Amino acid sequence: MRGEFEYIRWIRQQTPRSPGVAVGIGDDTAALRVEPGRLCLLTSDMILDGVHFESARVAPRAIGRKAMNVNLSDIAAMGGRPTAAIVCVGLPRTWSDSDAQALYGGLREAADAFAVPIVGGDTNASQAGVVVCVTILGEAPERGAVLRSGARAGDWVLVTGSLGGSLLGHHLDFIPRVREARMLCDGYDIHAMIDVSDGLAADLSQIAAESGCGMVLRAESMPIRAAAHRMPGPATPLEHALYDGEDFELAFTCPADDARRILADPALGVPIAHIGMATTEPGLWLEASTGAREALEPRGYDHFRP
Amino acid sequence: MRGEFEYIRWIRQQTPRSPGVAVGIGDDTAALRVEPGRLCLLTSDMILDGVHFESARVAPRAIGRKAMNVNLSDIAAMGGRPTAAIVCVGLPRTWSDSDAQALYGGLREAADAFAVPIVGGDTNASQAGVVVCVTILGEAPERGAVLRSGARAGDWVLVTGSLGGSLLGHHLDFIPRVREARMLCDGYDIHAMIDVSDGLAADLSQIAAESGCGMVLRAESMPIRAAAHRMPGPATPLEHALYDGEDFELAFTCPADDARRILADPALGVPIAHIGMATTEPGLWLEASTGAREALEPRGYDHFRP
Repeated sequence: MRGEFEYIRWIRQQTPRSPGVAVGIGDDTAALRVEPGRLCLLTSDMILDGVHFESARVAPRAIGRKAMNVNLSDIAAMGGRPTAAIVCVGLPRTWSDSDAQALYGGLREAADAFAVPIVGGDTNASQAGVVVCVTILGEAPERGAVLRSGARAGDWVLVTGSLGGSLLGHHLDFIPRVREARMLCDGYDIHAMIDVSDGLAADLSQIAAESGCGMVLRAESMPIRAAAHRMPGPATPLEHALYDGEDFELAFTCPADDARRILADPALGVPIAHIGMATTEPGLWLEASTGAREALEPRGYDHFRP
Repeated sequence: MRGEFEYIRWIRQQTPRSPGVAVGIGDDTAALRVEPGRLCLLTSDMILDGVHFESARVAPRAIGRKAMNVNLSDIAAMGGRPTAAIVCVGLPRTWSDSDAQALYGGLREAADAFAVPIVGGDTNASQAGVVVCVTILGEAPERGAVLRSGARAGDWVLVTGSLGGSLLGHHLDFIPRVREARMLCDGYDIHAMIDVSDGLAADLSQIAAESGCGMVLRAESMPIRAAAHRMPGPATPLEHALYDGEDFELAFTCPADDARRILADPALGVPIAHIGMATTEPGLWLEASTGAREALEPRGYDHFRP
């Protein structure tokens, strides 16, 4: 690559002015105008070569898109509006200018989809593959952020889209559910919400644990992604849907009345499945069509386990 | 390491409640209360194994401290108050629990020094050494952030502490100038400020370029760190002071009257040197005691150059 300062200069030239941004790229920090009275959301996720993608096999643009989208998905899971992004990268010295520009192009494509300005960051050489860390600032809904701790026994459990087999492509090519989350939070009494990143079972266990309730999921209602049927290995498509992760769909709970209206609301523009119920008894259970229940392990992807 | 979720649980247990934090570690994002009417500062810096430190030779605690402190230094350079931090890490699977805990200990030690809560983040396995990316949210001073673009011809150029030879230890063991920056901004008319990270010449070039002025620096006034005399290689101590970088001192400009009062203010508690003057003629110049001037290259550390 020609040089760090040229890259930053190029990025700065690509960056339009944005109304909420008092100071953008090019000073020690960004400075942003914040809506008074709203909680400020802050989230940051890092993606690493050989862990979340293989730079030898994935185009720089797709890496950029994923790095931005996983963070937008977290803002969505709070019902929030993303307002600004900061991007830190570690890039191999072997990358060309056009690789580095394509990475930025992917970051911008994903951010532009929700009118999120990239207001700063940090560029570094990396001795070991590509690392991208995106931080997003957002604004909570007026009623407050939708937490993991708000589920109540009797709530219905719903999920957008479909689950499983993300590794076959979806994890690089999803649209974070920012729009859907805001429509859900504006129109309905959403009690608890999470984005499915570690795997549905692991993520719903988080809601159950934080809310002090349990959940019973119905096996036959699980929306299984077509790719989950094409995954190699012995696991069933249902197991892929429960455990694979990186679906970046919204799993949420709400009162039965709201759930019925959500399931009948065409404006949401996304398939939504009613997959279960929150219960007073703790734990996570899978119910077969016969009515038989088995305990679901809350396992998901753990970075520090072999 | 035992597992990602155990590590996050352990971190969460170590984290006290903090008044501005509505939602801390453990949900999809953090949610923070923001002072109305103040600009929100946002900055993020990533440090990488083999580039900013060598994990084989630097203790995890020192890596954590550095990752936090480089970001606090950026908030200082805007005259801001740091209010919350988010931390993303990539850790080798070979790290023990106590390595990971020591890293967090270092991050917390640095953050605690300025009462900054760590409100969230992301933990990952890394296939290639340690990566730490810290993002800090801050609050601009009431009068607005101090930018790089505010220097005016006639301003004096000052710098805190001393410069050069940081590689011999200072870069792992500095206190970011948050306190000093706030005192300077509260008490004096600081026109432009930057933290010295890329090297004094490169960083002052940024101020000059953004402000549309030039600068003349006096060689004999340069505060040279003792370590700059101990650096191996052919460069002189003065060259180390001008080009090494990672000093994390404040370089700033202000009217002569303010500068004189600053130089006489014992409350600042740090040596401050008057190193030069902003000029209408562009460029960065070094003036010898003889009065002879030579142009200073704005070079500093460039990550993408060999």
